[in-house]
Amino acid sequence: MKIAFIVFDGITWLDLIGVYDPITRLKSLGYMPGLSWDICSYKNEVADNFGLRMVTTRIKPNLAEYDAVIVPGGLGARRLQFDNDFIDWIKTSLKVKNKISVCTGALIFGAAGFLGHKKATTHFLELNALKPYCRNVVNERVVEDGTVITSGGVSASIDLGLYLCEKWAGKEAAEKIRERIDYRNYSSKS
Amino acid sequence: MKIAFIVFDGITWLDLIGVYDPITRLKSLGYMPGLSWDICSYKNEVADNFGLRMVTTRIKPNLAEYDAVIVPGGLGARRLQFDNDFIDWIKTSLKVKNKISVCTGALIFGAAGFLGHKKATTHFLELNALKPYCRNVVNERVVEDGTVITSGGVSASIDLGLYLCEKWAGKEAAEKIRERIDYRNYSSKS
Repeated sequence: MKIAFIVFDGITWLDLIGVYDPITRLKSLGYMPGLSWDICSYKNEVADNFGLRMVTTRIKPNLAEYDAVIVPGGLGARRLQFDNDFIDWIKTSLKVKNKISVCTGALIFGAAGFLGHKKATTHFLELNALKPYCRNVVNERVVEDGTVITSGGVSASIDLGLYLCEKWAGKEAAEKIRERIDYRNYSSKS
Repeated sequence: MKIAFIVFDGITWLDLIGVYDPITRLKSLGYMPGLSWDICSYKNEVADNFGLRMVTTRIKPNLAEYDAVIVPGGLGARRLQFDNDFIDWIKTSLKVKNKISVCTGALIFGAAGFLGHKKATTHFLELNALKPYCRNVVNERVVEDGTVITSGGVSASIDLGLYLCEKWAGKEAAEKIRERIDYRNYSSKS
């Protein structure tokens, strides 16, 4: 399992780190020793709107190489939904089996045309912004529809991370990781 | 209010970002327009154990300049508790009115001698490691004792952030921010 975490200027870091933390524990706790990932963007460093900068590891790779692509949200996502170059890059993930968004990252998938006939969610204040892209917009924590998984606002990123742990490594792994990070809101999807 | 976020190699990024997110919203949502912060370390860039790198903004400033110092945890914190240079730097925050730790960041405060007569907490798996430093180790989400506030493991960082929002800007601000990030575990301290 090889994951592309997509980052960009104007990201909400908690959208990324909330899902990154549980998933990367699948590796460090030995549940998925072969798990690997890249921090992918269109530039070497990206910052949130306050200037907190993170260093990326790959510039615009062909996303078809990955088993999962994870797109966080933030004010930058609202801008990037209208950026043709960025959206063309995201479209290279069309055939990726796990296309996953956090918060307003769903707008990026919407603009890429991934949500036309799907059920999907986003930050509860942005549900209307998603409607032009998506047949069935719902206000839920985590929504899976075929190859697309979308999640709600900001802290829902942690729920999404635990959901993916369960999907990829089973209920016991997810519960162990939930306990390890002392998260109290998540309950098993099954 | 001027905050120093302390970062280091081997940090758990969610420990930092969980508290950073709600606090920085105090500024962007207009509750504390004068709020400012630095990302402080002993080097220009730091990485977690998986190699995810963030860029710092100040190298070893005198921490007495700040109104609040926030120390996250991670495997690096367990090492740094025994690093005299690092602990000497942390000791410059002795008179700071808000000395705040997340998860195993409490071990750093312990090594700096800040917890001797305090009640404090840390990650639930590391409570015994904190005992040599601290009179009264408890297993709670957020613990305030005088000028020191400690919090539990990883996801408790978000609770801590909301706790600080409430302490610094009031219950309404904290509730607004809790809602905005769609966090469902936190309840008001008052």
